[in-house]
Amino acid sequence: MSINISALPESRKACEKEDTVDPLRNWQHTFYLPKDLIYLDGNSLGPIPKKALEKLDQVIRHEWAEDLITSWNKAGWWELPETLGELIAPIVGAASGQVIVSDSTSLNLFKTVHAALGLCPERNILVSEAESFPTDLYILEGVKSTQPNIQRRLLGIDGNSLDELLDDQVAVVTCSHVNYRTGELLPIAELVQKTHEAGALFILDACHSVGVLPVELDRWDVDFAVGCTYKYLNGGPGSPAFLYAAKKHQKDAVNPLSGWWGHARPFAFEKDFHAAEGIRRFRTGSQPVLSLRGLQAGLEIAQEADIQQVRKKSQRLTQLFIKLVESRCRNFGVTLQSPTDPDKRGSQVALHFENGFAVIQALIARKIIADFREPGTMRFGFAPLYLRYTDVWDAADALKDVLQTEEWREERFRQKHEVT
Amino acid sequence: MSINISALPESRKACEKEDTVDPLRNWQHTFYLPKDLIYLDGNSLGPIPKKALEKLDQVIRHEWAEDLITSWNKAGWWELPETLGELIAPIVGAASGQVIVSDSTSLNLFKTVHAALGLCPERNILVSEAESFPTDLYILEGVKSTQPNIQRRLLGIDGNSLDELLDDQVAVVTCSHVNYRTGELLPIAELVQKTHEAGALFILDACHSVGVLPVELDRWDVDFAVGCTYKYLNGGPGSPAFLYAAKKHQKDAVNPLSGWWGHARPFAFEKDFHAAEGIRRFRTGSQPVLSLRGLQAGLEIAQEADIQQVRKKSQRLTQLFIKLVESRCRNFGVTLQSPTDPDKRGSQVALHFENGFAVIQALIARKIIADFREPGTMRFGFAPLYLRYTDVWDAADALKDVLQTEEWREERFRQKHEVT
Repeated sequence: MSINISALPESRKACEKEDTVDPLRNWQHTFYLPKDLIYLDGNSLGPIPKKALEKLDQVIRHEWAEDLITSWNKAGWWELPETLGELIAPIVGAASGQVIVSDSTSLNLFKTVHAALGLCPERNILVSEAESFPTDLYILEGVKSTQPNIQRRLLGIDGNSLDELLDDQVAVVTCSHVNYRTGELLPIAELVQKTHEAGALFILDACHSVGVLPVELDRWDVDFAVGCTYKYLNGGPGSPAFLYAAKKHQKDAVNPLSGWWGHARPFAFEKDFHAAEGIRRFRTGSQPVLSLRGLQAGLEIAQEADIQQVRKKSQRLTQLFIKLVESRCRNFGVTLQSPTDPDKRGSQVALHFENGFAVIQALIARKIIADFREPGTMRFGFAPLYLRYTDVWDAADALKDVLQTEEWREERFRQKHEVT
Repeated sequence: MSINISALPESRKACEKEDTVDPLRNWQHTFYLPKDLIYLDGNSLGPIPKKALEKLDQVIRHEWAEDLITSWNKAGWWELPETLGELIAPIVGAASGQVIVSDSTSLNLFKTVHAALGLCPERNILVSEAESFPTDLYILEGVKSTQPNIQRRLLGIDGNSLDELLDDQVAVVTCSHVNYRTGELLPIAELVQKTHEAGALFILDACHSVGVLPVELDRWDVDFAVGCTYKYLNGGPGSPAFLYAAKKHQKDAVNPLSGWWGHARPFAFEKDFHAAEGIRRFRTGSQPVLSLRGLQAGLEIAQEADIQQVRKKSQRLTQLFIKLVESRCRNFGVTLQSPTDPDKRGSQVALHFENGFAVIQALIARKIIADFREPGTMRFGFAPLYLRYTDVWDAADALKDVLQTEEWREERFRQKHEVT
């Protein structure tokens, strides 16, 4: 996918014009966004789809309040992991029957890593990307705590490459599609191919790409994948994550978190565990129905939106932001951490600034929401379904102003809180 | 705790009188219950507390819609597992800092069994109650799939007792407080003492007792406990479960599901896992905030209600139901599966009837909601905070009528669906 940089708008007026002809411009009305807010944190928590309000009213006031226990069948609660999984399937390039929504990304990674290890019983090495979102690394430590014979190798330490790490002892490679901090986009198809050539299995973490980049799990021949739904899928705070298991692995895959929701006959209340056929075996226990219902509207939007248009606009928005920041902020010590090539970048821009935390706080006070990641990374997410070119222009303007006036030095912006 | 059986109401009029003097009578107004419904399934899914509606509106329309990402700090989302855990602590007889709300019962059992095994490294046998809710048994199979040296012994098979199963190889005993099918109440304090005398650790599953029976985790010296919140705690469909870890074990306990929410410094994004101090180390990944907020109102009610009064009324309601069923339904082949002694019974009554499924369907058609468990068990749950003596009277009347008229033989009641 290429981008015509010269066609980027060069004035606020030109941005306004872009907004009026943007083929995605009508999607913004499907979301509720607070007045006068510029929201550059959809890569952390997406805004609420208006239809989610209806679905949540329905589940709370009717399904729970009126229909009570009968809703497990009547309203399809019991099937929600599969129902929502089927909505995600086309968004991640998966044929039917390979995706469920359940638990968290961390838990789904634990399930899939164990399953993948079980499929390669002669091998005992896990390769994981050193720059993964840390929970991925922590979960692999957890896997190792239950199976002490497992050993780990980190990819990307001292510039090592996947080629150097792969050998006939490697069972599993885990990788993120987009780096959570820098926004770097990895060539997944190529990494999967290398992994398979070495006889190992590949697990993808698609948290930072699902809903905003084309994801082609089947076509890339990914073995397992996990990802969250509260970022570009706009599923709501902490909405349950998805899990993909390629059809060919389902029959032999063992989910160690084998609760009754993954049993072949859960309502027979048998004493022994018999895993359900297909993707259902990756279910564990009762799922938070209110949060699942809150997620449905976001998935319906993502399924309908044209992902090629989303990607194209995402590249233009990030490129515009980078261009504006480079021309206006370079004198203040801000440096770009994201790849300059839009084809190697997800939908976020990372800027380094030593006092980045305070700068982000100052922007938030101006109703421009972005976030901060230690050490020194200011993260700006660009969600093409509701973000306008004028928003990008105004955000870059505000950033310049905060840096130029040194407003960020104010005491109120420098107090540290934990932020997500 | 004893019960004066002779004081039970002997007519519908006497039930009405009981309802007017019932010290718990005002609690029913804190719940929304559909008109003319008699709800005997609070042991499966509790009704919605009216205050839950407010809290859910707040989280959806303000915290998510308006405040977006800032709610992780501002609205305390990040701390919800501990905040809600502190609300549960007094309900389960736990001092502060020992309970979190997170994930599902199944997952919390996996965490605690692994942690307990790690605390007894010289031992490798898990004893579990054969009559546990099956997910407990399935999860133990899952633990074994990750640690093949673990062996299992089932308690209650062929009438064996805990004394017979305990020896110096037993690491962990898992038991339910109340049997999910029969309602039998186990003497936990005594079982814990025996387990400790044999040098093993005890894990309690309190799903069917929390909120309706006195639970005294600290006093009974339980090591770990788990339980769900959508039954007598009225937390909403699939609301996240709780996990208790006794203070003395927290320092050395290893949670194998070690995600970033359990890290000592989650926002430092370190590459290595360092478990948080205290109960926090049992957190794993992002939690479903909408479902957590939906749960809060139910916990506040349970915390305020007098559990001794709840237990007393529960015993009288179940005893009244048994007495009425015995006098009216004994000719139709219905038999009691629950203990006759109210001190050995939780808050549910199990009746066996070969065509129990159809009988329950016929009752549901009459707006009397109970449930069915294979094979042949009709389960009636009695939640003293919103159930009246007249409800019990009317339910027993309806049951008699369904049996006497053989209404349950109608085709529409005999079609099987999965029910939870």
